[in-house]
Amino acid sequence: MSDKAEAYIDANRERFIEELKEWMRIPSVSAQRAHDSDTRACAEWLVAHFQGLGLEACLVERGGHPIVRALGKGQNARRVMIYGHYDVQPEDPLDQWQTPPFEPTIRDGILYGRGSTDDKGQVFTHIKAVESLLKTEGELPCDVLFLLEGEEECGGESLADYVREAKDELKPDAVIVSDSTMYDENTPAITYGLRGMVMFELTLKGPSRDVHSGSYGGAIANPAMVLAQMLSACVDPDGKVLIPHFYDDVAPLEDWEARSLAQLGFNEQAFVDEVKAPRPHGEAGRSTLERIWMRPTFEINGMFGGYTGDGSKTIIPASATAKISCRLVPHQDPARIRDLVAEHIRSVCPDTVRLEVSDFATSPPVLFDVKDPTFPAAQEALRRGFGSESTFIRCGGSIPVVSTFVEHLGCPVILMGFGLDSDGPHSPNEHFSLDSFIRGTKAAAHLLRTI
Amino acid sequence: MSDKAEAYIDANRERFIEELKEWMRIPSVSAQRAHDSDTRACAEWLVAHFQGLGLEACLVERGGHPIVRALGKGQNARRVMIYGHYDVQPEDPLDQWQTPPFEPTIRDGILYGRGSTDDKGQVFTHIKAVESLLKTEGELPCDVLFLLEGEEECGGESLADYVREAKDELKPDAVIVSDSTMYDENTPAITYGLRGMVMFELTLKGPSRDVHSGSYGGAIANPAMVLAQMLSACVDPDGKVLIPHFYDDVAPLEDWEARSLAQLGFNEQAFVDEVKAPRPHGEAGRSTLERIWMRPTFEINGMFGGYTGDGSKTIIPASATAKISCRLVPHQDPARIRDLVAEHIRSVCPDTVRLEVSDFATSPPVLFDVKDPTFPAAQEALRRGFGSESTFIRCGGSIPVVSTFVEHLGCPVILMGFGLDSDGPHSPNEHFSLDSFIRGTKAAAHLLRTI
Repeated sequence: MSDKAEAYIDANRERFIEELKEWMRIPSVSAQRAHDSDTRACAEWLVAHFQGLGLEACLVERGGHPIVRALGKGQNARRVMIYGHYDVQPEDPLDQWQTPPFEPTIRDGILYGRGSTDDKGQVFTHIKAVESLLKTEGELPCDVLFLLEGEEECGGESLADYVREAKDELKPDAVIVSDSTMYDENTPAITYGLRGMVMFELTLKGPSRDVHSGSYGGAIANPAMVLAQMLSACVDPDGKVLIPHFYDDVAPLEDWEARSLAQLGFNEQAFVDEVKAPRPHGEAGRSTLERIWMRPTFEINGMFGGYTGDGSKTIIPASATAKISCRLVPHQDPARIRDLVAEHIRSVCPDTVRLEVSDFATSPPVLFDVKDPTFPAAQEALRRGFGSESTFIRCGGSIPVVSTFVEHLGCPVILMGFGLDSDGPHSPNEHFSLDSFIRGTKAAAHLLRTI
Repeated sequence: MSDKAEAYIDANRERFIEELKEWMRIPSVSAQRAHDSDTRACAEWLVAHFQGLGLEACLVERGGHPIVRALGKGQNARRVMIYGHYDVQPEDPLDQWQTPPFEPTIRDGILYGRGSTDDKGQVFTHIKAVESLLKTEGELPCDVLFLLEGEEECGGESLADYVREAKDELKPDAVIVSDSTMYDENTPAITYGLRGMVMFELTLKGPSRDVHSGSYGGAIANPAMVLAQMLSACVDPDGKVLIPHFYDDVAPLEDWEARSLAQLGFNEQAFVDEVKAPRPHGEAGRSTLERIWMRPTFEINGMFGGYTGDGSKTIIPASATAKISCRLVPHQDPARIRDLVAEHIRSVCPDTVRLEVSDFATSPPVLFDVKDPTFPAAQEALRRGFGSESTFIRCGGSIPVVSTFVEHLGCPVILMGFGLDSDGPHSPNEHFSLDSFIRGTKAAAHLLRTI
């Protein structure tokens, strides 16, 4: 790529920022019905903006908030699909914002406002990258297909349904997702693995009602105690999962991954200090990053039974419940783990209580082969845009849309985020570094060439 | 005792029942401010009734609901104190009553209404026993001192405070408590042992807020899981408490107790069927009655942490809490058990969480020596009043006022109840057998002679 596009980005920096601020002023809070017309206005703003750049753009209506689809034709037959979302989180708690959430404000080179990092600011890097290439080179190096949804923050299924149905027409050679983070403010990153999930609820029932612990205590089982004993039979004090065969299919750490983890120099103390946890804790002989990125878990997300009000009530609870989620890693199969978990739960449940297990929700883990040429190409784009080496990271969470792309589009997915966890997505005073915005825009422009 | 008193009771049966119904119509719901004037009216009704019988009666004011105190002087210097309460439980759920709670109604020889068994009906046996002796013999065999409180159902401390302060003036030779049950409808019983209690709340704190289980899962401790593991280290799957030295001072079953338990022919299946528990469960090698009456416990009364709403939320909870109560048996010392429990909890708590333990509430177990001559005397009174043999039983619960009497009055306490668990105290359609009422009145009259 010529330096013209980079020069164009630098020259138009202030306008780009003003346009982003204009877009951010539209409060596209998808989860709130009161903002439905704003959310639609936000999508329509995008369509008009794309059309102004010469792209073929429209709204895809699926009953919920519309999907914005825009296509810019390129010089070669390759097609890059860019995924992002134009909807944002609710603003509350409003009183904790230093400046109003929908009045974007710049302080010390940082853009504050709802959607700045999640995900309008990140999406805009790709839009402005396309503009810069078109204005300086007259055409795009490849087809660029934007699919920007309006239901990411409200759990809508429109995009996934559309991808499933339109996959033979969409047919990208690669998908780029800019809805994640860099490793730190100086280290751009490509996320090549996500954990999956198996989720369920477990209830133990004892007596038909809470009963007096004087009249019954010692002579019938206490469902809360049985629950504690069963959960203890699922995880050892180190955090190792005790379910037989649970780890059978866990991908071992590859040599390059071990070297990469070591090079990152992750600060474990800072990690726990941020949430004021007493100390790092987990499977013996594993680092914190390995525990989060490469190891599966069995976590209690919630637990309740019996009297939970103020003071005391001397009862044996009628029931006790735990909400459980297991994070899965490549190459654990959610269906197999679900069966192993269900079998183990049943095997450790005594006949002194009645066991009820909810339906299991599952999502698969994702792991990309970073040797696929798309990944070095993305690394090169990041190197040029940011002027520093990028790194490969994984993510301990799940991004369901990525699983959808993996399942239906059969192409590499590049998770190339320009935000930081500390940007406060979903929190008051959400913000995005304008330096990252401009460097991200340059990297996005380079990527359409290198990919 | 002559047969005159029994004959008087039989002759005046209908009037006694009408008087009891009149008293029951006063809704003395001590826990509800709206009924404060009713509660006082109920106490004043009692004072007038005692005065009508020739007793010296007054209200003892301690700031809360008054205590009714009435003294009938007797032939000898011995003094029997009769404890009971004139306040009742709230009526709700009102829609489940077949007849209104404060319109006492007789169906098939059973008196229905709030307070019928708990405790107005039982208290009235002693009042009518005193009347019957006075009317047929002209005087009482011994001093009879009634102390009837109005705060039993609302946890008031007036009576305990009064007993503590006035103990040198009260000075009974025996206390009779009629606020318990018979063994079954044909077997009157004397309760000679109560379990005590050590109660506390245990909270484990991890991160300063609920954190994302994708971002942190596997790398910091989950307070709910640590709580489950700690609780499992307190009780084994059989229900045996694992706290070192917990059982050191437990009184062994005496030979006569073992024989008595065997003779009772307790129906364990019916016991669990009543509350629909899957099966009896508890310490190996112990019967259900032994587990409830003679063995200590460690029970979870309530447990909560993390997300407890509908659906799921993939978090690691900031904290998890368990409300615990240990039932104690003779001769466990609450202070020693409190220390053992606290030490064990601390010893099994890892440094991955912060432990907070509330203040401990304790109450001592109670065990009377049934060889004290008061007990055979009470058995004899029951035999005469009911025409059948009585039995000695224990109670798995605690009756705090009994501990107060034991501590401050230093005399035997006879727990001689005429109700049944199935009478539904605290429930809709509370009731009391009129046959038990009359037989109980006769037994109460005999007791003032035999004791």
